Amino acid sequence: MKVISVFTLSSLVHGFSIPFASLSLHPPTRLFSLNSDTAVVCIEYQNEFTSKGGKLHEAVSPCMEATGMMTNTLEVVSAARQLGAMVVHVPISFPPNHTTISGEYGILANVKEGGAFEAGTWGAEICEDMTPQEGDIVVGGKTGLCGFASTNLDMVLRQNSIKNVALCGFLCNCCVESTMRTAYELGYNVKTLTDCVAATSVEAREAAVEHNFGMFSTRLQGVEFIKELKEREEVFESKRQFFRA
Amino acid sequence: MKVISVFTLSSLVHGFSIPFASLSLHPPTRLFSLNSDTAVVCIEYQNEFTSKGGKLHEAVSPCMEATGMMTNTLEVVSAARQLGAMVVHVPISFPPNHTTISGEYGILANVKEGGAFEAGTWGAEICEDMTPQEGDIVVGGKTGLCGFASTNLDMVLRQNSIKNVALCGFLCNCCVESTMRTAYELGYNVKTLTDCVAATSVEAREAAVEHNFGMFSTRLQGVEFIKELKEREEVFESKRQFFRA
Amino acid sequence: MKVISVFTLSSLVHGFSIPFASLSLHPPTRLFSLNSDTAVVCIEYQNEFTSKGGKLHEAVSPCMEATGMMTNTLEVVSAARQLGAMVVHVPISFPPNHTTISGEYGILANVKEGGAFEAGTWGAEICEDMTPQEGDIVVGGKTGLCGFASTNLDMVLRQNSIKNVALCGFLCNCCVESTMRTAYELGYNVKTLTDCVAATSVEAREAAVEHNFGMFSTRLQGVEFIKELKEREEVFESKRQFFRA
Amino acid sequence: MKVISVFTLSSLVHGFSIPFASLSLHPPTRLFSLNSDTAVVCIEYQNEFTSKGGKLHEAVSPCMEATGMMTNTLEVVSAARQLGAMVVHVPISFPPNHTTISGEYGILANVKEGGAFEAGTWGAEICEDMTPQEGDIVVGGKTGLCGFASTNLDMVLRQNSIKNVALCGFLCNCCVESTMRTAYELGYNVKTLTDCVAATSVEAREAAVEHNFGMFSTRLQGVEFIKELKEREEVFESKRQFFRA
Repeated sequence: MKVISVFTLSSLVHGFSIPFASLSLHPPTRLFSLNSDTAVVCIEYQNEFTSKGGKLHEAVSPCMEATGMMTNTLEVVSAARQLGAMVVHVPISFPPNHTTISGEYGILANVKEGGAFEAGTWGAEICEDMTPQEGDIVVGGKTGLCGFASTNLDMVLRQNSIKNVALCGFLCNCCVESTMRTAYELGYNVKTLTDCVAATSVEAREAAVEHNFGMFSTRLQGVEFIKELKEREEVFESKRQFFRA
Repeated sequence: MKVISVFTLSSLVHGFSIPFASLSLHPPTRLFSLNSDTAVVCIEYQNEFTSKGGKLHEAVSPCMEATGMMTNTLEVVSAARQLGAMVVHVPISFPPNHTTISGEYGILANVKEGGAFEAGTWGAEICEDMTPQEGDIVVGGKTGLCGFASTNLDMVLRQNSIKNVALCGFLCNCCVESTMRTAYELGYNVKTLTDCVAATSVEAREAAVEHNFGMFSTRLQGVEFIKELKEREEVFESKRQFFRA
Repeated sequence: MKVISVFTLSSLVHGFSIPFASLSLHPPTRLFSLNSDTAVVCIEYQNEFTSKGGKLHEAVSPCMEATGMMTNTLEVVSAARQLGAMVVHVPISFPPNHTTISGEYGILANVKEGGAFEAGTWGAEICEDMTPQEGDIVVGGKTGLCGFASTNLDMVLRQNSIKNVALCGFLCNCCVESTMRTAYELGYNVKTLTDCVAATSVEAREAAVEHNFGMFSTRLQGVEFIKELKEREEVFESKRQFFRA
Repeated sequence: MKVISVFTLSSLVHGFSIPFASLSLHPPTRLFSLNSDTAVVCIEYQNEFTSKGGKLHEAVSPCMEATGMMTNTLEVVSAARQLGAMVVHVPISFPPNHTTISGEYGILANVKEGGAFEAGTWGAEICEDMTPQEGDIVVGGKTGLCGFASTNLDMVLRQNSIKNVALCGFLCNCCVESTMRTAYELGYNVKTLTDCVAATSVEAREAAVEHNFGMFSTRLQGVEFIKELKEREEVFESKRQFFRA
């Protein structure tokens, strides 16, 4: 018996382009995965934050250790790649003298004064453990806080038919939270991986997760997110016969 | 026999919200339509443009008559409502003295100087023939040209799971074209209904359609768009048995 | 002796429009004020939040009382109007059935489920004490959280040459904070009036002010902001002779 | 006699940051220039368009020659640097396989199919004559058409207190026009340098300039823009004594 499939369905109906997922975009492992509509968005895993000697490492180090966020993140991105989800890196950087920002007040003043994340320096490089793999996308342009405001993140996600966005990285209550708020507003299904984020204090992280994250996202731990990816993949596998003519 | 359906599929897979369409949003006729992912976006069908006595009516009147755009548009929105697509109205308006804009130069200077589209006046009202019907959405905030820049249009479309956007209205090479350009950039599947738009000159319309519309949209006539809506609905109807348990 | 003035300066230099402030926009009292580059942005002073019987009033009432935020806000907007700053109202509202949002999860799900802020109802009205006055602007389109994302707020501020934005209203850690984050990103000089905001718990307000507000704004109390407006006006008054030919 | 200056004025008035221009940002030549509020935005002067062997060079070559746009542009950016204006480069690029875009239809489909502007290739490099100089800014992220939509352009301009934007580059009726439309909407004072732009046909350029550019910008030739920059600089020089204590 021939059963109509979601893939067939789109091609049946001329004049409209509603691919269930933009299949042509993805590396082989994502081609037939239900998770191809899902992206793990990794914010600022750069030496300045992640690595000994980074200008902001000491500030975030206690919070990183409290949750084990590096280990957790590495498991998440590894699982994502295997299970058909996209990994998107969102680094921040500035030209010499930080000429892209005025640095008059607020957190960007600190960044400019400290000369952090200067393009071409070790501090601005994505840390070795998080080196982008084939199939990952590295977002360009970030010179502000929100992952969307000064970048091509929204375009990259839209053009890849991403619906679900899982957020992790630095700082929990700064760039991650701004990105979460905007992603929610833009209509994505936002997940915050609460043990894959760090702030400059344990209290700041806890306050953000407790008071703010639930309003704009579903909060879950890295392992729970991996479990969801697996379950979707299994359901999809078990039903695959129905999706093929 | 029980066949997996696209609707069931989403609910099968816990933790992710990927409704084929946000069913709860729509009036009954759109509930089970494949066209529920499609919106007809009607830009500035307000008396100032459409009706005798409107401040800009004489300027657009020759171009309106050349294509019969009012008649064509009315057929499109009527078909859209019957066939499960959403109709979205995007009017423009300004408070007294046009305090929301400076009007220093460009087209907004003309609008301000002419006192056009003042909220609360007859000129700013959507014309009688295009009166919003139940199930339509009226977008708020438009005080500029692009239908997205100063409004909730993107949010309304995203929240209603709209993928395909068909554009019609005024002015072909001003607000309609800016909206088309942004919609393309935002990842929508954009269609421009070339005989449902008008400009202040026949030449301006023709130049826009010939040189610009093809870069950011699929160009088609109102009747062709209606035909597409019908064909999708028929395919869907004929397969509906497979989509129900 | 004839002294060059900032006003004269702009007009001296043909071909560029860099008015110190868009003078034509403002009501008489703002015409020659240094504070005409400043706006007080009042977020959601609507009955649903502010008034007994409002659907969310009980939730925010303890926090409102703890800071006296209504009294403080009324003093701020009154001073702003007298001292040449603009007052901007940013209400939220939804059509019947909240068709502009899907309400699948997060805070908008609560808003939709509770039927809050329905356009045309008493709950969605700006409360009596905060009734917009002549010269105020009411922003349109808000159907999300951030004051910029689904509205004409940015356009209104840009077109009125606003540089400094003082934020107050509801909820401290939701709409106010999202607006603050975006305003900072958009290059405004952002001030948060910490005793003119309220959240659904005293702790949520305190956490936001302590951990987040300093990164994206200058925190100050209503009376401190009023003092700043006064001092700028006095300096300007005392120097006015130098600014006139 | 001591005369109040615009620079002194800002620092006189505590609590507000309204620099006439963000002086700290600029290289020495821009420090005291009235033109420091002005940017020349150069769109896609990359080999793919500008140079023999570029994938799109033949398509734009007739239009380039008709106006002499390369020569004109080089004079404009040279004058801008000397007269205190900022030069901003807005290149477009894509990772291998153009994974940042789906390329389903419209102009991005052509770009993807043709493999144009791939990052790291000669075609994506800014052409030799337009090599960024010290003090210039290179915008990041552009993977779409509008110069603002997928980049940090707005942030860079805002953070550098830019008010006037002069546009030049490729394609006249595609990226340049989309950037012009958005810049106007964002409140910049937009100038289009009509003999510093090229399209894939002479007719397309003429239609855009005639029908569309006047609605969203002031049209002028490169030499006229240079004259404006010079006049502003001269006025400023002649009055400089009044601006210093």
